[in-house]
Amino acid sequence: MTETLPSTPRADGFRMPGEFEPHAGCWMLWPERGDNWRLGARPAQQAFAAVAQAIARFEPVTLGVSSRQYLHARDVLPASVRVVELSANDSWMRDCGPTFVVNESGAVRGIDWEFNAWGGLNGGLYFPWDQDSLVARKVLEMERAGRYRADFVLEGGSIHTDGQGTLLTTEECLLNPNRNPGLGKAEIEARLEEYLGVEQVIWLPRGVVDDETSGHVDNLCCFLRPGVVVLTWTDDASDPQHAVSLETLEILSSCRDARGRRLEIHKLHQPGPLRITPEEAEGVDRIEGTLPRRAGDRLAASYVNFYLANGGLILPTFGEGRDAEAAAILAALCPERRIVPVPAREILLGGGNIHCITQQQPAGQPHAVPKPPPAAAH
Amino acid sequence: MTETLPSTPRADGFRMPGEFEPHAGCWMLWPERGDNWRLGARPAQQAFAAVAQAIARFEPVTLGVSSRQYLHARDVLPASVRVVELSANDSWMRDCGPTFVVNESGAVRGIDWEFNAWGGLNGGLYFPWDQDSLVARKVLEMERAGRYRADFVLEGGSIHTDGQGTLLTTEECLLNPNRNPGLGKAEIEARLEEYLGVEQVIWLPRGVVDDETSGHVDNLCCFLRPGVVVLTWTDDASDPQHAVSLETLEILSSCRDARGRRLEIHKLHQPGPLRITPEEAEGVDRIEGTLPRRAGDRLAASYVNFYLANGGLILPTFGEGRDAEAAAILAALCPERRIVPVPAREILLGGGNIHCITQQQPAGQPHAVPKPPPAAAH
Repeated sequence: MTETLPSTPRADGFRMPGEFEPHAGCWMLWPERGDNWRLGARPAQQAFAAVAQAIARFEPVTLGVSSRQYLHARDVLPASVRVVELSANDSWMRDCGPTFVVNESGAVRGIDWEFNAWGGLNGGLYFPWDQDSLVARKVLEMERAGRYRADFVLEGGSIHTDGQGTLLTTEECLLNPNRNPGLGKAEIEARLEEYLGVEQVIWLPRGVVDDETSGHVDNLCCFLRPGVVVLTWTDDASDPQHAVSLETLEILSSCRDARGRRLEIHKLHQPGPLRITPEEAEGVDRIEGTLPRRAGDRLAASYVNFYLANGGLILPTFGEGRDAEAAAILAALCPERRIVPVPAREILLGGGNIHCITQQQPAGQPHAVPKPPPAAAH
Repeated sequence: MTETLPSTPRADGFRMPGEFEPHAGCWMLWPERGDNWRLGARPAQQAFAAVAQAIARFEPVTLGVSSRQYLHARDVLPASVRVVELSANDSWMRDCGPTFVVNESGAVRGIDWEFNAWGGLNGGLYFPWDQDSLVARKVLEMERAGRYRADFVLEGGSIHTDGQGTLLTTEECLLNPNRNPGLGKAEIEARLEEYLGVEQVIWLPRGVVDDETSGHVDNLCCFLRPGVVVLTWTDDASDPQHAVSLETLEILSSCRDARGRRLEIHKLHQPGPLRITPEEAEGVDRIEGTLPRRAGDRLAASYVNFYLANGGLILPTFGEGRDAEAAAILAALCPERRIVPVPAREILLGGGNIHCITQQQPAGQPHAVPKPPPAAAH
């Protein structure tokens, strides 16, 4: 019923659609590890629940949770959210979940990338990641969607596509020797083209400052629609983020997309800079082998880490003066979407944001056609 | 998305269809506990996999497995079987899974009965049963099927319906004080009518001899279609099963179904009697609190414990001379079904058989209608 396909998406006529294209729904995971989320993950759970509820106003949401936390998650989440048992080592569905691809006739399949917890034993964020590694496969099987198994380490947060042949990614992440050390840039690009059905990869050097994902592009910039990009920004030239955003702006301004268009680029001024408070750091269990959360550490805060739902934009907010500005800019750029701000500092404290904890499933038909019974039934 | 409904199936126009009616598919669970299944459950897993594979020739099969055994189950099972993460304390989907109900327009919902491991702390088979208790809810939520929560202990193996208003059950099980001690026979009957949409309950006194389920009807007799029942039988008057089968025959012969029909009854001579061998008993981990498997104990072996798939009948066999006889009788009675014998002694050693480890989902539409997006999407 769920096939592991021997070919690649491009060979079969599939492409990764833009996040702004219609969705069948959204997938999430439930946070619970106390060595990454403070206070036994309770504040993060509230934040995740608010995100799930916000998205569920626009499209169906399925949230995966371990057997241990099933009843609690079911209790906290609204009935409109579907809760399924689905183990993971943490809760980053963007990065360990499948990347869905579609074809012209509306069929949906998924890519199950290799996952090594953002760097494996050489800089990864925790050990083990055995359950994370099974999430994509389990999601695809639950949906009865065909599965491409990519022999290639990739996290969903490290790529953004316009759905029309263009991909955004960062060298900091994709060329990091702790991902695919045996592959050069051209080989990696060829794999991205083969699996995502793109023709042009726009390489950006670095992601957001102090982003523990090795600079995922989804915290730096993204497509609002083909030809239109938003970019996290700071006017403060003394902030190292300024140089990162400026070099990104220069590259995006000088390139053309796969269809030959110049990109329209809009800046979203970052919040903060924000740092972990002593109280927040104190609430995290200190465990050997998991990235520590230390007071004073800079948080990789960015408004770009939003989720585009059907007719909605779920925007992380931080209780900062910049929150309203970001919402207003996005509202003006996306008159067809409702902007829904969700307080997200508790998600940020765990190392990512709303985009990192979600994964869209594009509209279309993932179900295998059931075989007819071999004999006439009653 | 998955609603817990405040009403009852009958109030909403739903009924439990007969197992012989068309299915959307079949649900199973994966055996793994070494204190019930010998040799770390490996032989049972092979038998369950053979059952899943046999059913998958006729209809889609979904098998639930714990995170621990996921990769092993996925490896053992054919690709045609959908494997999902779904924890349970053991592997009896018939008894802890949902009972599906349908209405005239093809909608499918499910009943989530209370479950207490066949008797709770007063004669139940193991402790705890916390994960079993969540199986029905999780299945219904995965299917996006509306859920009726019945405040009433019932296992699916203790009932059989003809889909036309008649229910078969046993007093030994349903009136056992370790199930619903506060309820009398009339009250229990009223609940069966309310939840299953039946009008007539045929009470049989006892189930198969030494059946640890408190005499589930699904090991004793079942409907092949409305008006036609098969009954496990022995000609050996010295076997205590003879009296049980004889009293059942007398009741079935003298009653009428909900539509006023006399029942046509066919005997299936039991195998054996079969007993646990010393080697088999030795392979089971002895754990305080779990029903022991002792050498010489009689197995509740019955050919009636088959599963009706779309166009198929999956028949347990025991390597006995009676196997071929049972298959021949059923083939003659069901010319429209393919009879598929599956060796099932390893399942029987765990306390049940093919019907006990399966649960049919009737054909129809369980999916909630997705709400339209609140604003126009791209």
